[in-house]
Amino acid sequence: MSDKSNDGNGSTATEVPKGLEGVVVADTAIGDVRGEEGFYHYRQYNAVEIAEKRTVEDAWHLMFEGKLPSKAERDSFSEEIRPLRSVPDQVKKLLPAVATAGDHFLPLDALRTALSLCTFAYDFHPSLDVDAEELRGQAMRVCAIVPTLVTSLYRLSEGQEPVEPSDDLPYAANYLHMLTGEEPSAEQAGAIEQYLISTIDHGFNSSTFTARVITSTGADLGGAVVGAIGALSGPLHGGAPSRALDMLDAIGEPDNAETWIRNAIEKGERIMGFGHRVYKTNDPRSLMLRDVAERLGGEQYEFARKIEDSVLKVLEELKPGRRLRTNVEFYSGVVMNSCGVPRAMFTPTFASSRTIGWCAHVLEQAADNRLIRPAARYTGPPPPEPVPDPE
Amino acid sequence: MSDKSNDGNGSTATEVPKGLEGVVVADTAIGDVRGEEGFYHYRQYNAVEIAEKRTVEDAWHLMFEGKLPSKAERDSFSEEIRPLRSVPDQVKKLLPAVATAGDHFLPLDALRTALSLCTFAYDFHPSLDVDAEELRGQAMRVCAIVPTLVTSLYRLSEGQEPVEPSDDLPYAANYLHMLTGEEPSAEQAGAIEQYLISTIDHGFNSSTFTARVITSTGADLGGAVVGAIGALSGPLHGGAPSRALDMLDAIGEPDNAETWIRNAIEKGERIMGFGHRVYKTNDPRSLMLRDVAERLGGEQYEFARKIEDSVLKVLEELKPGRRLRTNVEFYSGVVMNSCGVPRAMFTPTFASSRTIGWCAHVLEQAADNRLIRPAARYTGPPPPEPVPDPE
Repeated sequence: MSDKSNDGNGSTATEVPKGLEGVVVADTAIGDVRGEEGFYHYRQYNAVEIAEKRTVEDAWHLMFEGKLPSKAERDSFSEEIRPLRSVPDQVKKLLPAVATAGDHFLPLDALRTALSLCTFAYDFHPSLDVDAEELRGQAMRVCAIVPTLVTSLYRLSEGQEPVEPSDDLPYAANYLHMLTGEEPSAEQAGAIEQYLISTIDHGFNSSTFTARVITSTGADLGGAVVGAIGALSGPLHGGAPSRALDMLDAIGEPDNAETWIRNAIEKGERIMGFGHRVYKTNDPRSLMLRDVAERLGGEQYEFARKIEDSVLKVLEELKPGRRLRTNVEFYSGVVMNSCGVPRAMFTPTFASSRTIGWCAHVLEQAADNRLIRPAARYTGPPPPEPVPDPE
Repeated sequence: MSDKSNDGNGSTATEVPKGLEGVVVADTAIGDVRGEEGFYHYRQYNAVEIAEKRTVEDAWHLMFEGKLPSKAERDSFSEEIRPLRSVPDQVKKLLPAVATAGDHFLPLDALRTALSLCTFAYDFHPSLDVDAEELRGQAMRVCAIVPTLVTSLYRLSEGQEPVEPSDDLPYAANYLHMLTGEEPSAEQAGAIEQYLISTIDHGFNSSTFTARVITSTGADLGGAVVGAIGALSGPLHGGAPSRALDMLDAIGEPDNAETWIRNAIEKGERIMGFGHRVYKTNDPRSLMLRDVAERLGGEQYEFARKIEDSVLKVLEELKPGRRLRTNVEFYSGVVMNSCGVPRAMFTPTFASSRTIGWCAHVLEQAADNRLIRPAARYTGPPPPEPVPDPE
């Protein structure tokens, strides 16, 4: 596809901002983000309210089925999920090799590899060739298996045996159980549950869009989620939650905060955990996670609060009018740390819950599909130059 | 990001066609497609002319370095590629398990799994964190390893030993060698070389766009290519070349053609190998590949010519004005078949050459990056509905 400027034959082209910022590329009934209001929702419900009142399974049911489940529906949904958590044998035996294939453990690379193996083992076929019910079944499998894969791979990379999913624990508590080998406290399970629910979906972010573009070709659901994991591994998208804690470490003492932050901003460095492309006011996820962190308490929370105040003060002074606020990443790290999630597992934990959102988008895209194939403007030297023989 | 219709606070949104058709989302100096003219180019050269006069390595050099190589540059580029073709040991020992992880061999699923393992073994880090030279080195590795992976995986799935890359053969001949275990004739090597060159790039197709969206998050090059492979596996994008041959088989005899085609069109079935979203005239790849197929000769070519004539005649009669012409897929299959490429390997062969195009786009995106994050319009019931307790 070429645009008017170079084909000269009258095809029309629309030009949009390079990052597609603010460009509406699809209709969706899954949810939305209202950046100016500091509000986001899953279907017709405030996402933060769901995180405060419901379970991961309930939110997952809402995303897939379009409605919050009754108690009976929750039970039968949980029954359906339970057996899907176990890794197929032919993949299980390969996980140790996947976890140790590199000199460094790269958890999202390991996840995308292991998930790709699973979808092969599950015999997923192109979404174009399967009906809505089968595709939903595949999505259930993928959402159920990802927590087991990420926790197993992490433990293997640390020289530990994977922990089998527990039949008695729901998603959030089971996640911590598989990660640490211990049954979490109700407080920790509740805190991670809120985190997981609040990160299931968030508009047309890059990984969600990736999943939809891949699905638009009729590719299998596994390929779409594997691609989305790749996008999430990018530091500009899912890669920053551990960096915010790293910053807290680097600052060390509350008294150092102002000087450290001033230096960083003057050197043009990005302050991790602040600012968001969409929210121009408080990030509702940040407010909720700050409450969760406060409930969990501890020194790190107190320290984080002080640093937050200092950062916001310095940002207001040095970058007035930019409306940079604390984003989801800042208190995510504090909450996950308090729940015993190691830093290397921050983004993989995010990937686990976001998989539910990706899959909901895959199902929606496949149900009313059109190939996504944009255009570009050619800016190089004009063709055709004759091809010379090599000298 | 929300649009005017539902956030009520004045953020502006641009609406574009759902499939982004004709929407210019980026600038590129890599190449372009002029659908109305039946012309496409790599940088300033007609792609078909490159395919007729140059080698895969030359085209690859053009895509990466921006210029066609001299003889000396070609030699040193080939020297650089040679050692990168070998699969790292820790991945090699896993390939048999990857090739047989499912009940059915899905070659692109196997490729994306194995490539994901390789990029892990290569210790690729986020593109945001590596410099242009290192990223180019990673791209060289990925383009060099993909042919070895796809051919090894295929052979393993057939119960055969993989064939090591040959130090003496260039890309195209080596590809057939690794696939069949035999050194191809000069005619076959030349034919597959033209096919491979002609499929390196083709505008902002879905897989190329996928690679750029993933790269825009700062993710590693492996994640971008793994995602693109997923997109290419979709039947609406890369999945059809073997289906065109399947159609020839189904027709069986030239005399059956008209009836068969009429039936298929009347039943609303898609005729494989005809029509293209971008080309509204002859697909230049199809014209070139028809010439290549004619040179190779054989019964299948004669049969394909007759079927092409019948299809075009019936299409013109039943769908006048739709300008449906033979696309790249129709003669691709004939050419690959004549070169000894089995049908299961048609799309993987396409993936091998297209990897060069994807990587060129990754390098271009990373060099001048902006996060790609579009918006959607929420069309579900209006929030916020209070979250009920489960009944």
